[in-house]
Amino acid sequence: MDMNEEEAAEVADKFKEESVESFRNKQRRRSSIQAPRIIDPNRRTSSVSNESCSSYTGSSSDEEGINPREKTQKSSAGFTDFCVRNIEIHSVGRKEIEIAEQIDMCGLMALRRRAKTDKPLHGAKIIGCTHITPQMAVLIETLIALGAQVRWAACNIYSTQNVVAAALAEAGVSIFAWKGESEEDFWWCIDKAIHADNWQANIILDDGGDATHHMLKKYPTAFSMLKGIVEESVTGVHRLYQLSKTQKLVAPAMNVNDSVMKTKFDAFYCCRESVVDALKRATDVMLGGKHVLVCGYGEVGKGVSAALKAVGCHVMVTEIDPICAIQACMDGIRVVKISDAVGSVDIVISCTGNKNVVTKEHMDSMKNGCIVCNMGHSNTEIDVNALKNATELTWERVRSQVDHVIWPNGKRIILLAEGRLVNMSCTTLPSLVISIAACTQALALIELFVAPTGRYKNDVYLLPKKMDEYVATLHLSVFQARLTELSEEQARYLGLNKSGPFKPNYYRY
Amino acid sequence: MDMNEEEAAEVADKFKEESVESFRNKQRRRSSIQAPRIIDPNRRTSSVSNESCSSYTGSSSDEEGINPREKTQKSSAGFTDFCVRNIEIHSVGRKEIEIAEQIDMCGLMALRRRAKTDKPLHGAKIIGCTHITPQMAVLIETLIALGAQVRWAACNIYSTQNVVAAALAEAGVSIFAWKGESEEDFWWCIDKAIHADNWQANIILDDGGDATHHMLKKYPTAFSMLKGIVEESVTGVHRLYQLSKTQKLVAPAMNVNDSVMKTKFDAFYCCRESVVDALKRATDVMLGGKHVLVCGYGEVGKGVSAALKAVGCHVMVTEIDPICAIQACMDGIRVVKISDAVGSVDIVISCTGNKNVVTKEHMDSMKNGCIVCNMGHSNTEIDVNALKNATELTWERVRSQVDHVIWPNGKRIILLAEGRLVNMSCTTLPSLVISIAACTQALALIELFVAPTGRYKNDVYLLPKKMDEYVATLHLSVFQARLTELSEEQARYLGLNKSGPFKPNYYRY
Amino acid sequence: MDMNEEEAAEVADKFKEESVESFRNKQRRRSSIQAPRIIDPNRRTSSVSNESCSSYTGSSSDEEGINPREKTQKSSAGFTDFCVRNIEIHSVGRKEIEIAEQIDMCGLMALRRRAKTDKPLHGAKIIGCTHITPQMAVLIETLIALGAQVRWAACNIYSTQNVVAAALAEAGVSIFAWKGESEEDFWWCIDKAIHADNWQANIILDDGGDATHHMLKKYPTAFSMLKGIVEESVTGVHRLYQLSKTQKLVAPAMNVNDSVMKTKFDAFYCCRESVVDALKRATDVMLGGKHVLVCGYGEVGKGVSAALKAVGCHVMVTEIDPICAIQACMDGIRVVKISDAVGSVDIVISCTGNKNVVTKEHMDSMKNGCIVCNMGHSNTEIDVNALKNATELTWERVRSQVDHVIWPNGKRIILLAEGRLVNMSCTTLPSLVISIAACTQALALIELFVAPTGRYKNDVYLLPKKMDEYVATLHLSVFQARLTELSEEQARYLGLNKSGPFKPNYYRY
Amino acid sequence: MDMNEEEAAEVADKFKEESVESFRNKQRRRSSIQAPRIIDPNRRTSSVSNESCSSYTGSSSDEEGINPREKTQKSSAGFTDFCVRNIEIHSVGRKEIEIAEQIDMCGLMALRRRAKTDKPLHGAKIIGCTHITPQMAVLIETLIALGAQVRWAACNIYSTQNVVAAALAEAGVSIFAWKGESEEDFWWCIDKAIHADNWQANIILDDGGDATHHMLKKYPTAFSMLKGIVEESVTGVHRLYQLSKTQKLVAPAMNVNDSVMKTKFDAFYCCRESVVDALKRATDVMLGGKHVLVCGYGEVGKGVSAALKAVGCHVMVTEIDPICAIQACMDGIRVVKISDAVGSVDIVISCTGNKNVVTKEHMDSMKNGCIVCNMGHSNTEIDVNALKNATELTWERVRSQVDHVIWPNGKRIILLAEGRLVNMSCTTLPSLVISIAACTQALALIELFVAPTGRYKNDVYLLPKKMDEYVATLHLSVFQARLTELSEEQARYLGLNKSGPFKPNYYRY
Repeated sequence: MDMNEEEAAEVADKFKEESVESFRNKQRRRSSIQAPRIIDPNRRTSSVSNESCSSYTGSSSDEEGINPREKTQKSSAGFTDFCVRNIEIHSVGRKEIEIAEQIDMCGLMALRRRAKTDKPLHGAKIIGCTHITPQMAVLIETLIALGAQVRWAACNIYSTQNVVAAALAEAGVSIFAWKGESEEDFWWCIDKAIHADNWQANIILDDGGDATHHMLKKYPTAFSMLKGIVEESVTGVHRLYQLSKTQKLVAPAMNVNDSVMKTKFDAFYCCRESVVDALKRATDVMLGGKHVLVCGYGEVGKGVSAALKAVGCHVMVTEIDPICAIQACMDGIRVVKISDAVGSVDIVISCTGNKNVVTKEHMDSMKNGCIVCNMGHSNTEIDVNALKNATELTWERVRSQVDHVIWPNGKRIILLAEGRLVNMSCTTLPSLVISIAACTQALALIELFVAPTGRYKNDVYLLPKKMDEYVATLHLSVFQARLTELSEEQARYLGLNKSGPFKPNYYRY
Repeated sequence: MDMNEEEAAEVADKFKEESVESFRNKQRRRSSIQAPRIIDPNRRTSSVSNESCSSYTGSSSDEEGINPREKTQKSSAGFTDFCVRNIEIHSVGRKEIEIAEQIDMCGLMALRRRAKTDKPLHGAKIIGCTHITPQMAVLIETLIALGAQVRWAACNIYSTQNVVAAALAEAGVSIFAWKGESEEDFWWCIDKAIHADNWQANIILDDGGDATHHMLKKYPTAFSMLKGIVEESVTGVHRLYQLSKTQKLVAPAMNVNDSVMKTKFDAFYCCRESVVDALKRATDVMLGGKHVLVCGYGEVGKGVSAALKAVGCHVMVTEIDPICAIQACMDGIRVVKISDAVGSVDIVISCTGNKNVVTKEHMDSMKNGCIVCNMGHSNTEIDVNALKNATELTWERVRSQVDHVIWPNGKRIILLAEGRLVNMSCTTLPSLVISIAACTQALALIELFVAPTGRYKNDVYLLPKKMDEYVATLHLSVFQARLTELSEEQARYLGLNKSGPFKPNYYRY
Repeated sequence: MDMNEEEAAEVADKFKEESVESFRNKQRRRSSIQAPRIIDPNRRTSSVSNESCSSYTGSSSDEEGINPREKTQKSSAGFTDFCVRNIEIHSVGRKEIEIAEQIDMCGLMALRRRAKTDKPLHGAKIIGCTHITPQMAVLIETLIALGAQVRWAACNIYSTQNVVAAALAEAGVSIFAWKGESEEDFWWCIDKAIHADNWQANIILDDGGDATHHMLKKYPTAFSMLKGIVEESVTGVHRLYQLSKTQKLVAPAMNVNDSVMKTKFDAFYCCRESVVDALKRATDVMLGGKHVLVCGYGEVGKGVSAALKAVGCHVMVTEIDPICAIQACMDGIRVVKISDAVGSVDIVISCTGNKNVVTKEHMDSMKNGCIVCNMGHSNTEIDVNALKNATELTWERVRSQVDHVIWPNGKRIILLAEGRLVNMSCTTLPSLVISIAACTQALALIELFVAPTGRYKNDVYLLPKKMDEYVATLHLSVFQARLTELSEEQARYLGLNKSGPFKPNYYRY
Repeated sequence: MDMNEEEAAEVADKFKEESVESFRNKQRRRSSIQAPRIIDPNRRTSSVSNESCSSYTGSSSDEEGINPREKTQKSSAGFTDFCVRNIEIHSVGRKEIEIAEQIDMCGLMALRRRAKTDKPLHGAKIIGCTHITPQMAVLIETLIALGAQVRWAACNIYSTQNVVAAALAEAGVSIFAWKGESEEDFWWCIDKAIHADNWQANIILDDGGDATHHMLKKYPTAFSMLKGIVEESVTGVHRLYQLSKTQKLVAPAMNVNDSVMKTKFDAFYCCRESVVDALKRATDVMLGGKHVLVCGYGEVGKGVSAALKAVGCHVMVTEIDPICAIQACMDGIRVVKISDAVGSVDIVISCTGNKNVVTKEHMDSMKNGCIVCNMGHSNTEIDVNALKNATELTWERVRSQVDHVIWPNGKRIILLAEGRLVNMSCTTLPSLVISIAACTQALALIELFVAPTGRYKNDVYLLPKKMDEYVATLHLSVFQARLTELSEEQARYLGLNKSGPFKPNYYRY
């Protein structure tokens, strides 16, 4: 299918209208909906101390100085095709990247070792639009090691770590990103990543769909020549399916958000790790013996419940799906209606993906001192607006991310992160989760780039299971795990290829 | 698509050739491959004591008397369209059925209560070919309560409980089944279920594919008029997919074997419940502190490992699939090669679905007293043949299902159930597992029967997720679980119907 | 302190009166209070099949033949100082003993290996009065290997395994025991163990106190020359403390019942292993998702609750002790009053050591199908008498150890083992538990025998912690555990001897 | 026993010499050995944000200003018998105390409610010497509510929270404590608490033994008139036992450090809660799948291991005590020698109470990136000195409490808190743990004060079990637990008083 520029612009506009109501909404989206990928830049995510680099990342001079677009900067090697806050701080960023390489990003580093003899991305020209963190820098430099050329922008106006952007620029990467971009800066940076002299990109790595949208609208011809798009966010994937449905997707796209490894690590494992951490950092509460109501028993609720039971909590859950409800039962957990239990528990955690699950009425009946927080997808699971609009209630900010909401009779509930994702707000993503996601992105890029013509149509695809399995393989050494290989005879008996894939697509793990 | 009798016979023959090598193989298949549905008739599965009915089910007079086909029998009401071992013993069977109704089969009983006002199977004429147990009797009588007419045969020559067959006959069910049928009896019974005066069946409930095969071959015209086939075994489903692939399937078929509820309960939950039970009943071993090697970390291996860890075992696993391997790691379990660990563990359990996973060489290196057993799909996971063929080894049967295999140096390994499924051989299926399966079958029959023309083509379908969810709903009361309902606003927000289905088909639970 | 014969007889009589009301009570005591040591002779406890030896242990000829006391029997070697049912069956018993040696009794076998060079019991003359099982035979033969001479009787008229007694007699052990002794036989056998020509015993190993009592009454002078008594039952220990309190204990006694290792394995570990096993064997119930009320959260309740939670039950507990109650809370378990929960649960298990914990009123309010059983100390925890005396109730024995008690409205409760210890009645003791107990007894005998004069007064002592630790050490190899040794410097720092004991007496483990 | 001043001084000097080598050692003792009670004043322990009070607690003006002893201060009510840093900041401290009352200190608040009608401490004159935190303030004000008069000093020169001391002074408490006391200040404050006009104390609440030591040395006559001493630290208890051994203890003393409730919560529950928290806050490591070596399987090691297993770690342990080793085995954990495992694990945690458990040689063989930390009693478990003295190693402080120690080949180990207690250094004590301890102290004071003459001699006593149980009872409401009461008949059967104590002293819980 071919599409002229006018059509493309129309599609892209519709695309924009549907999902972006206003800039303010967009900001919120970036800090909440896409939150699983946001690394709070005020928090440490690697082993370099906050203190040592705070003067670079947090100082007012960084953010309030002259606009980087107005500055002329140059790397030690004389390279200038980039735009960052301040290239002078590159060595701090390089150190952060090196630590990420050593400790966190084992999957990518395994790929990079392979790259010494094998350059599957030779000839790939990648437009990247992601958060700019040490971990993403490892991804970017791995893609380059695998043979790719890249141009990169930030997918969020706040999340760029300036030291990391500086290190990339110093290393000769065409990066256009800084912390505290304006809306106009944001699109300017994306445009610089897409469009340059002697640069016809053949693949996009997107997080949220903004680069895809911009290119489809402004450079439709170039867009239609892409070998593919890799998209990793819920929002971006949603947009792609809408394009596909209206048959306006003019390149193959790969939804890596729903790959097996990524979803298991983003949801179950990440939540099992982080719920206790988040509650502890925010409140120092002793969890042993506490009664907890977990709303929702999907992957997130399962991870949250497992962690809390393990530390001695008495957990109850609510569910709308009878299958998940029975899973809770079979795990020894009572399934109740929220109204049955909300008045007697010490902690309420929403994990549903739904809205208004914990209402003001529920909070009216909670005990004094009840802790309320959200581990789910959206910041509307707890009806915080109703609390804000209730004139009888008093709010008291007791510390960052912790509010006491006080009823007229003196009862307090302890609201964490104003109902946003508490593990994102009060703690950090475990690096392994990021490694899995980054590795999945790299393999999706390779798959799209090396696939023979015709394997992928202009549609949205899930990551091939074999690639999903390869992500796992690349991380086995972290766990000192030794895999068994099928014998020829066994492979024949099972009707499998010895190198996988090992399961049908519908396998539930 | 239409198919004349000749073509049909050809298809059916091919069907037969592919899957049935010899009668001996068939017998083995019936007692091992289809094992999840076999209720060992020598074991008690409900609360009536063995003693009280042993004279009926186990006595030599039952099995060695004259062939039931040569006897004339009549129910109290004068009904004669059946063939069972001995209708006189019906009251014992009725008591077993009543106990199953009270304690085990809550899902079906909920359906039966609904049947008072709603007869969704009114007009259905069902050919059934399953094991004949108290639980299956509850299914049969539920189908009748829902409006169906039925004719029924056994899917296995050994598994029929004669007291139950007698009770069904006494109640006026056209049943053709007894324990200890000959091969010829077996096909005669199936033929009686399919073919009768004034009987044009419109639906088949099959377990293993024999009724389907027989009807397709012998009565192709009648077959092509079916509204559908419900098949519940791995083997039967495999046959259906082969028919479909060669476009010789001339009626819609539903694969209930891979429904979510059934697989979760057949695999993970059933194995978590039964592995300790089986090991204890067979060996009385103290499990706390034992080192166990579990081969395979799919649903079965996960259930087995969870149960053993919970009772204090130190568990290691082997895997070929890197994703499952990482799941084991994240559950705190070391992933090893079998050769790394097999020499130091106390128990080895195969859970792979593969063949020759535990070889003679492995067993050569095991410790004295090591217990070896199989929880997987096939009785070839442990290479028992190699043990049998090894002339240097001595076998000592220490009790039913327990052999000591003795090496020349005196070392013994303790082999359970000769490598067949140890939970099937040494313990019984939890009734809830059977209830889930039976309820799934009933709902699949209803779906195929009431579906508007055109919803199902001549292909093999998975159970619609909404039906799967309904199976769960019907069992919620067992667990005293209270389900939450979506508000209109929430359903709209999620884009869901308030009554489900609640998840996309690819959801992994 | 010295005591003449009259005084001794008085003491012994009082001793008898206090604890033995009638022979009928005694029988009950033997089958319930002392139950942890009773090996149900109708059940298999080792790996020789029931079938192969049933003709010996269970046949009517064994038990109904002429009284062994009237028979003249001789071992192959011409030995005659014994009295058993039938020495001819010795080879079956020897095989059972050998299997116990190989698989079960690792601690004793380690001691026996040590005995090759070290005979700490050289000169010891031991009167034994215990159950006669393969495991006890291993103990007896270990004591002999360590240098002791022994004479032995049974502590229970029913529990002797005749094949084992035969094997011991064939091996030259002076054993006086058979299954189905009369009351008179019982005391005759004990007397034979105590009194013989050229036999002045210096130590007693008792289980229940009967040998101790008999000797104290009938042979007070010989009794006062004992180096000590080792007693292993609750009842026997209770009697000893009473003797001590009234200063009529004229020899040192060691209470091994309350040793650390024995109590941990008898209570927590044994119950964690056996509760699921017992429920499964008795009822085949699916435990996942079931609601269970556990009465009492001592060691037994903790083991029971841990096992049930692990298999997916929702567990609640009752407690009278606030410390144990808080432990339950900190394990995530709700602490309720029995009346709060008894009407809604699927299973009720008493683990209190108290009486009338589950009353008729409680059972009146239970749900249909509720399972009721006892894992505690006494068969009075469930008020079974009230059920038996209630004329409105009907009892239906559905199989061995399982009764349905039926209310007028048709409601059934499923009572297991008539309220006796369900793990003793419906399953077997794990052999490791027996090994720990037997090993503890052996070490207590050694300690009393080798202790320098004056270390022990005429009082009741707990096993020295160092001996308790040694029991553990002897079992470490079962678990492939490697112990760390203190360096000299570390031992000095901790103020410990390098070889232990490592903890103060009040340490809580 | 009576003792003149000279003798007392001698005792006290010896007391001092034995345990206090130098002031530097003392400081270290205060920050490590007594650590369980130290609330790191740089960390938040209640819900008032750091930010809001940082100007009071942390500012240089506070600590570097003129010595409080030289200032004249007065409460709003004109009270002057105190010495704190700055009484003006009392309202911030009062807020902290109020929050502690609401959320943390349920046991004490229950006692305080009882105090409305019952003043068991009427007439008690208590010298207190503890850390000065909001929780301790709740204890102090509870003692006053129960009828006591108090004078108070700090037991540590660094741990006083100045805002709390100010609030107590404002409320009329004679308190002498500030953060940053000199050695001379320290003893001056203690002296002010002990000695005042019209003040003859009758009881001491001590934490570390300094007040006890000072009074015994300087005011021996007054000391010998005490009704008792309550001591809560390991060190203080050790000193008391030494005094008792040499018969120089001239008043009864109660060791609350070894009470059941306190030890369970200080050790097992506290460590289970805090180990994950500490590792996460310090390193953000993903724990799932990590291999961890836990040295020691006492209460601390058990709590640590349980928490880590629950979050998906593969845990191994080392032990010197065979009983604890077997407990690990029965929990499914491999028991290894440290040298077997230390080269392959990701995390090493010492929990032994011993010294030099993790040596330089062990650290030489660790993997790159291995995390090393201590949860045990003493900061010498990891041989940090050897690391500090090794000239080939480089240290890099990556953030507060986290050092990279770098080997010549570039290998890094990540050392937390320089080997001090990592849960104390990197996180906070759960408030419930503090509540249990404070409540235990209050009840011990009451017991000593109200005990009839003669119940306690001049010796060291454990808390009576009934008091221990009462601590539990006072906290049951936190967990919504309902206790069962014995009937008269049951109490008689068990030989117990209906109100406890319910267990013998040697009971192991």
